[in-house]
Amino acid sequence: MKIICSKADLVKSVTIAIRAVPVHTTMPILQCILIEAKNGDIRFTTNDMDLGIETHVKGIIEEEGVIAIEAKMFSDIIRKLPDSDITISTDERFTVTITCQKAKFVIGGQSGDEFTALPSIEREESITLSQYTLKSVIVQTIFSIATGEANKMMTGELFEIRDGYLKVASLDGHRISIRRVELKEECGEYRVIVPGKALNEISKILSGEMDDTVRIFFAGSHIMFELEDTIVLSRLIDGEYFGVDQMISTDYETKVSVNKRELLSCIDRASLFVKEGDKKPIIFDIGDDSMKLNIDSPIGSMNEELVVSKEGKNLMIGFNPRYMMDALKVIEDEMITLYMVSSKAPCFIRDEEEQYTYLILPVNFTH
Amino acid sequence: MKIICSKADLVKSVTIAIRAVPVHTTMPILQCILIEAKNGDIRFTTNDMDLGIETHVKGIIEEEGVIAIEAKMFSDIIRKLPDSDITISTDERFTVTITCQKAKFVIGGQSGDEFTALPSIEREESITLSQYTLKSVIVQTIFSIATGEANKMMTGELFEIRDGYLKVASLDGHRISIRRVELKEECGEYRVIVPGKALNEISKILSGEMDDTVRIFFAGSHIMFELEDTIVLSRLIDGEYFGVDQMISTDYETKVSVNKRELLSCIDRASLFVKEGDKKPIIFDIGDDSMKLNIDSPIGSMNEELVVSKEGKNLMIGFNPRYMMDALKVIEDEMITLYMVSSKAPCFIRDEEEQYTYLILPVNFTH
Repeated sequence: MKIICSKADLVKSVTIAIRAVPVHTTMPILQCILIEAKNGDIRFTTNDMDLGIETHVKGIIEEEGVIAIEAKMFSDIIRKLPDSDITISTDERFTVTITCQKAKFVIGGQSGDEFTALPSIEREESITLSQYTLKSVIVQTIFSIATGEANKMMTGELFEIRDGYLKVASLDGHRISIRRVELKEECGEYRVIVPGKALNEISKILSGEMDDTVRIFFAGSHIMFELEDTIVLSRLIDGEYFGVDQMISTDYETKVSVNKRELLSCIDRASLFVKEGDKKPIIFDIGDDSMKLNIDSPIGSMNEELVVSKEGKNLMIGFNPRYMMDALKVIEDEMITLYMVSSKAPCFIRDEEEQYTYLILPVNFTH
Repeated sequence: MKIICSKADLVKSVTIAIRAVPVHTTMPILQCILIEAKNGDIRFTTNDMDLGIETHVKGIIEEEGVIAIEAKMFSDIIRKLPDSDITISTDERFTVTITCQKAKFVIGGQSGDEFTALPSIEREESITLSQYTLKSVIVQTIFSIATGEANKMMTGELFEIRDGYLKVASLDGHRISIRRVELKEECGEYRVIVPGKALNEISKILSGEMDDTVRIFFAGSHIMFELEDTIVLSRLIDGEYFGVDQMISTDYETKVSVNKRELLSCIDRASLFVKEGDKKPIIFDIGDDSMKLNIDSPIGSMNEELVVSKEGKNLMIGFNPRYMMDALKVIEDEMITLYMVSSKAPCFIRDEEEQYTYLILPVNFTH
């Protein structure tokens, strides 16, 4: 094999492909990037058996061929080379020579035969979103997946297609995050659980541009994200996801509208007194036109008053400051509205159109 | 005590003062910033018993007083407050109240009586440098101090005043870094060892501006750096520093001039094949108009050729790539010159005026 690509194109493609290379594995071949050069197409493939990535690279093929190269070393070499054309060539003993200007690297590669190919996917029904939208939807929900292995389903996110909407939801037992996006095209009904790891990686590959699109294919035990030069394929998590709709209520006794940035800064200050793992709540004391926030700890106390507009009953309610901050950080609106029933019932943060809904359970407090 | 300062002024002063707060100590009072407000002057003092900092803060004194406040918590609170005036007040039980707009923090402070005052220094002979110069001199030499405790003197830097020059030198057994600065004023002779930790902290406090000055006082067992609003006081390391001058030679058999950036990039690439703790040298094969760099390792090999201008004998010599890179990174010249005698003798990198001299010992290699 002999190919010539610009450094910039190689860096771009390696950065994408390396996201599906496992850090630890019992199959060393999976720590490689498979490079295939044939029929005028240069393709990088990586596969950790749950997540697979295939990306096309711009370049010239001088000699067709296939090679597997240890991904980390390959990535490091490419990045450190001068900003110029890079030639990658291999011999029959899988020795790889990488040259750029007067620099020449020689490393050992492996036969591509051992590499586990990605499963082939039927390109049947799909939805199309802008990369901006998909990226936002992931970033605005993924923080509330569970990280432990207690419940495998909680480590993924629900992707549900129904009635012309995509709904993405995550929950960890303390809170639920939901984003809802109207679809532009007809599509059948789907309800699948996508691993959080796959979504994290795809969110980093997405450009975040309104004008770039991504197609999402639902194919049995897999979901596939198709971008311009790249496909990302993920195995789904088996099981029936939680009945999120039944956990959501629109009743309220107290409705509070507040400036998001002010509330976030205030909770951020208060959280100075909360150590990791500590159950100390921040207390919202909601009065007629103001909300007092207060935290007491052995180290000290903090209180602050925010101007709010309130409907309904006065209420005193406590929250884990981190859960409240996680939601506030990803909401883009300047003013947000909190809906509450009592100090024991969940608080909802949602917009009028229900594009987003955040449920946060309160924390008991004594006063 | 009651004082009012802007957030910006407090952040600036706390950022400076906290540099002398020890991370671990058996004397909890040393983890505090001492705040003194008297005679129209607000002053923050910190002291880890080796290094002490005193800095003056702009602000209004409404009531004189003294308090010691845990530095980390105080710094965190100040940073998280809105960008506005901050009031700090204390009561007779050393409770500290910090208010800013509608936010109010209450934390416990301590009596200032327990705090260990900085030793008083005779302001006798001093030298004056621009903050830019002192900062450069430190940054360009400190990387070659030793970090272990094998030899206490190696953890500091020589500051020598003689014949109208300040000479700063560090060494770790593998290399020596020397910077030499001409002084504008008369001064007696001094030869002291300043702890590396103190120099690291002072380099971060220095503005790096040509127009800002710093005075350095030599006072028995201490050295004092005086900036506009701040003094930094450090205990010196006892002992007679190594005879650096005797280790330096100006003889050479091979003299090579090379573009610094190109050499640095090339060694950086080669060092991909060097694992931490590994003794693998990079080999410089110096010919008439070119220098070939080569590294061989079990992972792979790299070689590259650089255009150089050479005087004297051809030479093959090996170096620890990190030592070579550390020196190249801090040299500001575009072209640098290496002086060598043989593959067993030290290599010198120095400029014509001997403003800088870097000695690097070669590494044995087999070929």
